[in-house]
Amino acid sequence: MSETAFARTPEPPYYAVIFTSRRTSVDEGYDDMGARMVELAARQPGFLGVESVRGADGLGITVSYWTSLEAIAAWRAHSEHRVAQSSGRKKWYAHFETRVAKVERAGSGP
Amino acid sequence: MSETAFARTPEPPYYAVIFTSRRTSVDEGYDDMGARMVELAARQPGFLGVESVRGADGLGITVSYWTSLEAIAAWRAHSEHRVAQSSGRKKWYAHFETRVAKVERAGSGP
Repeated sequence: MSETAFARTPEPPYYAVIFTSRRTSVDEGYDDMGARMVELAARQPGFLGVESVRGADGLGITVSYWTSLEAIAAWRAHSEHRVAQSSGRKKWYAHFETRVAKVERAGSGP
Repeated sequence: MSETAFARTPEPPYYAVIFTSRRTSVDEGYDDMGARMVELAARQPGFLGVESVRGADGLGITVSYWTSLEAIAAWRAHSEHRVAQSSGRKKWYAHFETRVAKVERAGSGP
């Protein structure tokens, strides 16, 4: 996935999916799939935004924001997303951690 | 802050502080302060781990994990951390968003 800017999220509460991943050296289709998933996620009910960064060493963090656990479950089960998840497990990710969290407080600065 | 690996967190529930930031072009003392804050955070009661990535374009995401809201509040109020926060607002960050979230579910793969 290409890098993104700040997500414009509403006042809490809402949900975050924190996806931390280490890439393999296989690039095959990764960027296209990442862009397509962002496009698709943005059209899902309950999607609030996404923030995504990958470092030069291959470690990446993507946080997507959602209105509810139901919205997250629906996105997880989306057929095209499931195909991408399967490719991710087989080709693109050496390891990943997924954490679903309820955002209770938020602030910004400076 | 330099890039880190995966945090080894326990079974949920626990808390995450999601810190998304855009750096200024000012580097003055930033790396040293980042390393020092990680060292200091790791010694705080209730600290569970940290994952941090900054992309080539200056956008970064750091997620720190904690046992409780009380542990997060204590770290936020730590005197040396408060000095770093102040420098961050003045020099290092063009913009940041901080979100405090309760991790309810976690998984890993492939």
